[in-house]
Amino acid sequence: MNYPMIFNNIGKILLVEASLLVIPAIVAIIYGEHTLLSFSLTIAILTAVGLLCLRKKTKKKSIYAKEGYVIVALSWILMSLFGALPFFLSGHIPSFVDAFFETVSGFTTTGSTILKEIETLPKSLLFWRSFTHWIGGMGILVFVIAVMPKTESTSMHVMRAEVPGPTVGKLVSKLRASARILYGIYFVLTIVQAVFLLAGGMPLFDSIVTSFATAGTGGFAVLNNSIEGYNSLYSEMVIAVFMLIFGVNFNLYYMFLIRQGKQAIKSEELRWYLGIVAGSVIVIALSLINTKHGVADSFRYSFFQVASIITTTGFSTTNFDTWPMIAKFILVFLMIIGACAGSTGGGIKVSRLIILVKSGLRDIKKAINPRSIETVKVDKRTVEEPVVKSVSVFFATYILIAAASMFFVAIDGRDFATTSTAVIACIGNIGPGLGAVGPYGNFADFSVLSKLVLSFDMLAGRLELIPMLMLFSPYAWARKYQ
Amino acid sequence: MNYPMIFNNIGKILLVEASLLVIPAIVAIIYGEHTLLSFSLTIAILTAVGLLCLRKKTKKKSIYAKEGYVIVALSWILMSLFGALPFFLSGHIPSFVDAFFETVSGFTTTGSTILKEIETLPKSLLFWRSFTHWIGGMGILVFVIAVMPKTESTSMHVMRAEVPGPTVGKLVSKLRASARILYGIYFVLTIVQAVFLLAGGMPLFDSIVTSFATAGTGGFAVLNNSIEGYNSLYSEMVIAVFMLIFGVNFNLYYMFLIRQGKQAIKSEELRWYLGIVAGSVIVIALSLINTKHGVADSFRYSFFQVASIITTTGFSTTNFDTWPMIAKFILVFLMIIGACAGSTGGGIKVSRLIILVKSGLRDIKKAINPRSIETVKVDKRTVEEPVVKSVSVFFATYILIAAASMFFVAIDGRDFATTSTAVIACIGNIGPGLGAVGPYGNFADFSVLSKLVLSFDMLAGRLELIPMLMLFSPYAWARKYQ
Repeated sequence: MNYPMIFNNIGKILLVEASLLVIPAIVAIIYGEHTLLSFSLTIAILTAVGLLCLRKKTKKKSIYAKEGYVIVALSWILMSLFGALPFFLSGHIPSFVDAFFETVSGFTTTGSTILKEIETLPKSLLFWRSFTHWIGGMGILVFVIAVMPKTESTSMHVMRAEVPGPTVGKLVSKLRASARILYGIYFVLTIVQAVFLLAGGMPLFDSIVTSFATAGTGGFAVLNNSIEGYNSLYSEMVIAVFMLIFGVNFNLYYMFLIRQGKQAIKSEELRWYLGIVAGSVIVIALSLINTKHGVADSFRYSFFQVASIITTTGFSTTNFDTWPMIAKFILVFLMIIGACAGSTGGGIKVSRLIILVKSGLRDIKKAINPRSIETVKVDKRTVEEPVVKSVSVFFATYILIAAASMFFVAIDGRDFATTSTAVIACIGNIGPGLGAVGPYGNFADFSVLSKLVLSFDMLAGRLELIPMLMLFSPYAWARKYQ
Repeated sequence: MNYPMIFNNIGKILLVEASLLVIPAIVAIIYGEHTLLSFSLTIAILTAVGLLCLRKKTKKKSIYAKEGYVIVALSWILMSLFGALPFFLSGHIPSFVDAFFETVSGFTTTGSTILKEIETLPKSLLFWRSFTHWIGGMGILVFVIAVMPKTESTSMHVMRAEVPGPTVGKLVSKLRASARILYGIYFVLTIVQAVFLLAGGMPLFDSIVTSFATAGTGGFAVLNNSIEGYNSLYSEMVIAVFMLIFGVNFNLYYMFLIRQGKQAIKSEELRWYLGIVAGSVIVIALSLINTKHGVADSFRYSFFQVASIITTTGFSTTNFDTWPMIAKFILVFLMIIGACAGSTGGGIKVSRLIILVKSGLRDIKKAINPRSIETVKVDKRTVEEPVVKSVSVFFATYILIAAASMFFVAIDGRDFATTSTAVIACIGNIGPGLGAVGPYGNFADFSVLSKLVLSFDMLAGRLELIPMLMLFSPYAWARKYQ
C-alpha cells in the first residue's frame, strides 16, 4: 500500500468538501440561521485534517488499482463522517449514527431518511442535505469516467460493453476533457430543471434543492410528504421527466454533443430502459384504476412513481405502500434493476439486466445445440465472455450482500416487507421501500447495528460493490499482497 | 426433433407410472376404499396412452441433448397430469388444477399442498400422495446420473466440480451399474428410516409414508399439522437426522461403498452443508430462547426446522411463521440455498453457493491485484471458468424466474411475505413458506393462474431450470434448429 499517496488524495478530497461547505454556510448567513457556527466549525475541522493529510510528502507517485479502490471507499466514508457534523453539532440530529446515516444517504444519492419531521430543519441544513445528493451524483460521474477505466476492473468492461462505437476509447484517452464535458451536461441540466420548476411557481429555494436531489437521483425533499406536498401536476411532470433524463447514460448525451446522436438513440440500453418504464407505467396504472383513483390520476401517479423508482431517486407523490400488491412488486423489481449504467442512478443497472437475460437465453440455446457457438450481443456487438461472467458474478454478489444484510436487519424484528425492502432500497440507492420504510415512513426506528449495515449497503451499492468489499477484506491488507 | 423417439420414451415412462399406481391400488384394496375405481381407471388410461405412444416405430435411435431435455420436461408434466387423476376422479380434490398442483408438488418433492383437511383423505390417496415424493426423488437420481452427464450440460460441470477424485469418470462410464447402486442406497435408507420410526411407536402406515416423504425430501405428511401431530421427540429426531442424510450428495455414499470414505468426508460441500446447518440451528435456537420456549425446546424446534428447510423437505413441528424475524429470514435463506447437489433436495444447492461465494472473493482479489491469476478452487481442485460462469448464470436465471413468478402471483393481492415466499418455497421445492403459506397454512386460496405459475416453478426448480425453460422457448421449436 502506498499510504502517503492515499493520505494525499484523501487530504485533497477533504479540502474540496470544506470548500463545498462554504455554500450552505452562505445559505445560513442569508437566512440568518444559528447553524452558521456548526458549518464554520466543520469547515475548520475539515481544513485542519485535510492539511494534516497533505503534510506527508510522497516520493512514489504511482498508485495501483488497490490504492485506487481504497481511496474511493475511504473518501466516501470520511466525507460522510465529516459531512454529518453540521447536523450533529447544530443539535438537529442528536444521534451521530443518525447524522452519519443521513449523510451517507445523501452522498450515495439514496434519499433514505431518519428524520420524522423534515420541515422543522433550518434552510441551511436542508440545503446541505440536498446538496450532498448533487455532490454525490457528480462523484459518480468522476468515478465512472476516471476511476473505473484506470483499473481494468469489471466495471470498465461493462462500460465498454454498453457504449457503442469507438467512443469509449475517446472517453478514456481524453479523461479530463470528458470529465469537464460530463460535468457541464450535469450542471446545465440541473439549472434547466430549476428554471422549469421556478416557472411553475415553486419557490426559488425549493426549486434549487429539488433540482439537486433530482440530478443526483437522490430523493431528499424539503416537505414532509415529498413532492406530494406541492400538489402540482406541472411540477410533478417536470420532475418525472428530469428524473428519467438523469437516469440515462451520460455518455449518450456526450455522443449527441459530438454529433453521434443517431447512434445514441439506437442504444439498446436506452430502449430497454424506456420499454421497462412504459410497460411498468401501464401495468401499474391499470392496477390502480380499480382503486380510489380515476384513469387520469392512475397514470399520473404511476408515471411519476415508476420514473422515481427506476431512476432510484425515491421522490413520492402518494403513499404507494397502499397500492395493490402487483404494483408494489413491480416497484420492488424496478428498485433492483435501477437506471442505466453511466447515469447518476443506482441499482444493478439496465445494461447488466440485458446481459443477464441474454446470457440466460444463450444458455438455453446452448443446451438445445451443445455444439453451437452462441455469443451474447449488445448493440449488435459481441460481449466478451469475461464480461458476461463478471456481470453474473456482480449480480450474485449483489444478492448475497443483500441477503447477508437482511440477516442483520432482521434482528430488529420488523415485518418481512420492511426488513427486505429497507435493504433493497439502501443497496439500490432508492430511498423509500415498503411497510414502515414506505414513502410515509422513515428509517428512524432501526437499531444502531441496522443503520450501520444499511449505511454499508448504500456505499456498497453506490460504489458498485468492489471498493467497499475490499476495504473490509483481509486480502487487501495482507502483507503478501503489499 | 426426433419425435418418434420422444413419443417412445414418454410412452415407456407412462407405462412405468401405470405399474407404480398398482401399489396404491393395493392399499385401496387392503383398506377397502372406494378409490380403487379411480386408481384402476387411471391405470387403464395410462396403459392405453402409453401403448399408443409406443406404436410409432423409430428408425433413428439416436437422441441429442435437445430431445433429452424435451423428454424430461414433458414426462414430468404428463406424469403429473395423469398422476392427478386419482385425486380428481375420486372427487377428493374437485378442481383439476388443484389436483395437478398437488401432484406436481408431490413428484417435484416440494410438499406444498392445496388441502385444508389432510386427515379426511382415504389412506390410499394419502399413500399415493407421499409415494409421488419417493418416485420423484428416485427420478432426480436418474436425472442426476443419467440425463445430465449425457448432455454436456452445465449441471454435469457442477457435478464434475464437486466430486473429488476420479469417481465421476467411473460414474459416467458405468451408468447403469451406478444407477442400480444409487437406487439401492435410496431404497435401503428408506427402509431403515421406516424401521426406526416403527420402533418408536409410529403406526406402520405413517412410518412408511413419512419415510417416503423424507427420502424424497418432499414433506407431505398424513396429519393436518405435519410431524407436530405425533408429539414425539424420538420420531422428530429420527426424521431430522434422516432428512439431513437424504440432503447429502449420494455420490458420497457411493464413495463409502467403494472404500473412498476418507475422501468423501473431506468433501467441501459436505462441510459447508453441515456448517450452515450447525450455524443456523444455534442462531435460531438463541433467538427462540427469549420466546415462550425453554432452552431444550428451542434447540429441538430449531434443529428439526433447519434440517427440514435446508434439505427442502418442509415438514414442521411448530408454526415457525410466528418465530422472530431473524429466525424466519434464516429459514428463507436456507430455502434458497437448499441441499447438496446430487441429493434429492432442491434449492440452488450448496455447491453452487460455494462457487458463487468463492468467485465473488476471487473478483475482490483480482481487483486488488489485476495482474494476478486467481482461480476458484473446490476440494483443492480448480473449477474451470465455464463452470464458474454457468453457475453465476444459473443463479441469475433462478432469481429472474422467481422475480417474474412473483409478478404473476402478486396479481392475487396477497401480502408481501406470502407472495414472495410462496414462489421461493415452490421453485426451491421446499413446501411451506411464510404468512398464509406458512406451516399452518396452505396454497388453496391462490388463483388458477398463480397455481399454474407455481407449478411451473416447482418443475423448473426440480429440473434445474433448463428443461422447463426450453420447453417454453421458441428456439427449441424453431425450424432453424431442427
